[in-house]
Amino acid sequence: MNFISDKKILLASKSPRRKQLLEDAGFSFTVIKSKEVDESIPEKITGKDAAIFLADLKAEAYKNEIQKNTILITADTIVCLKDKILNKPKDYKDAFDILQLLSGKEHKVITGVSIRSVDKQISFSDETCVRFKKLSTEEIDYYITNYKPYDKAGAYGIQEWIGYIGITEINGSYYNVMGLPIQKIYENLKNF
Amino acid sequence: MNFISDKKILLASKSPRRKQLLEDAGFSFTVIKSKEVDESIPEKITGKDAAIFLADLKAEAYKNEIQKNTILITADTIVCLKDKILNKPKDYKDAFDILQLLSGKEHKVITGVSIRSVDKQISFSDETCVRFKKLSTEEIDYYITNYKPYDKAGAYGIQEWIGYIGITEINGSYYNVMGLPIQKIYENLKNF
Repeated sequence: MNFISDKKILLASKSPRRKQLLEDAGFSFTVIKSKEVDESIPEKITGKDAAIFLADLKAEAYKNEIQKNTILITADTIVCLKDKILNKPKDYKDAFDILQLLSGKEHKVITGVSIRSVDKQISFSDETCVRFKKLSTEEIDYYITNYKPYDKAGAYGIQEWIGYIGITEINGSYYNVMGLPIQKIYENLKNF
Repeated sequence: MNFISDKKILLASKSPRRKQLLEDAGFSFTVIKSKEVDESIPEKITGKDAAIFLADLKAEAYKNEIQKNTILITADTIVCLKDKILNKPKDYKDAFDILQLLSGKEHKVITGVSIRSVDKQISFSDETCVRFKKLSTEEIDYYITNYKPYDKAGAYGIQEWIGYIGITEINGSYYNVMGLPIQKIYENLKNF
């Protein structure tokens, strides 16, 4: 694929889903170890600003290490029900409570992305509305027990069982819900 | 998964994508050989009626063969630009013309589904709006040359390269665009 920048692309992420998405979209890139950062969000920052804040924070950790002719990509995905940001569940009960909150309602999934080279940086976000049907307690229990969604903001993966049987519609990008707004990344890498 | 009918489910489809979707959604089922039917649509039938017409037509071919305690699923996916149904492309030029038609516009993907047992039948459809960015001729050429979308209505697969880099948003079910509205099928199989 010769449509995007010929710089070397680095993805700093622990997420196997982000790696898979970039691969399936045909990008050539290298995964580098994501550095631990304090992911607490200042109180006044909400919604897409929070997603971009976290993506930028992850990128900041590499600011002295970006080489010439390389591009660094970092990202963070948050799940918002109205103005409340739903985090990764701490345990079974927390996951159950989060999924009961999402049941029968629409929520937003926002991924913030930061793309940086030595002399340029772009940050942007993409938002997808996701609607769950009314989930039964048996369905929620079956999902948590079998899929253990403890590494997932909002306690679910759209590409897992609950996404197939529980999501009635989305409005926006599917891949954004999985963790990367691939189409927007592609556009932004075209002339980077 | 014990949430749906305990009858034996048969999927009559040649599509590897439909098989994969039902598998990933956790259904137990058997694929049976899909019978050849004349898929020409009477002129006055359009949109969702056409998708249901074709799904029913495929099911009709089995009407004397459905056993007690089995459920037959058939489906057909059509792509509509305004009122025009876009078929599978005949050759490179046809695929190119179709993708240029879809470029920069929104179109509809409609899957019709027919579910039948000995004494019951349900037919329904699901519709997803899909928006393509303005595709360059180089992008269209790259996609057709590398992915050969000749078995796909509308000349593209949302789960392929062009879906990642070219689709800006969808409104509805992603899996419906791939070929089966899994969430609706799950609901309909619950009490079948």
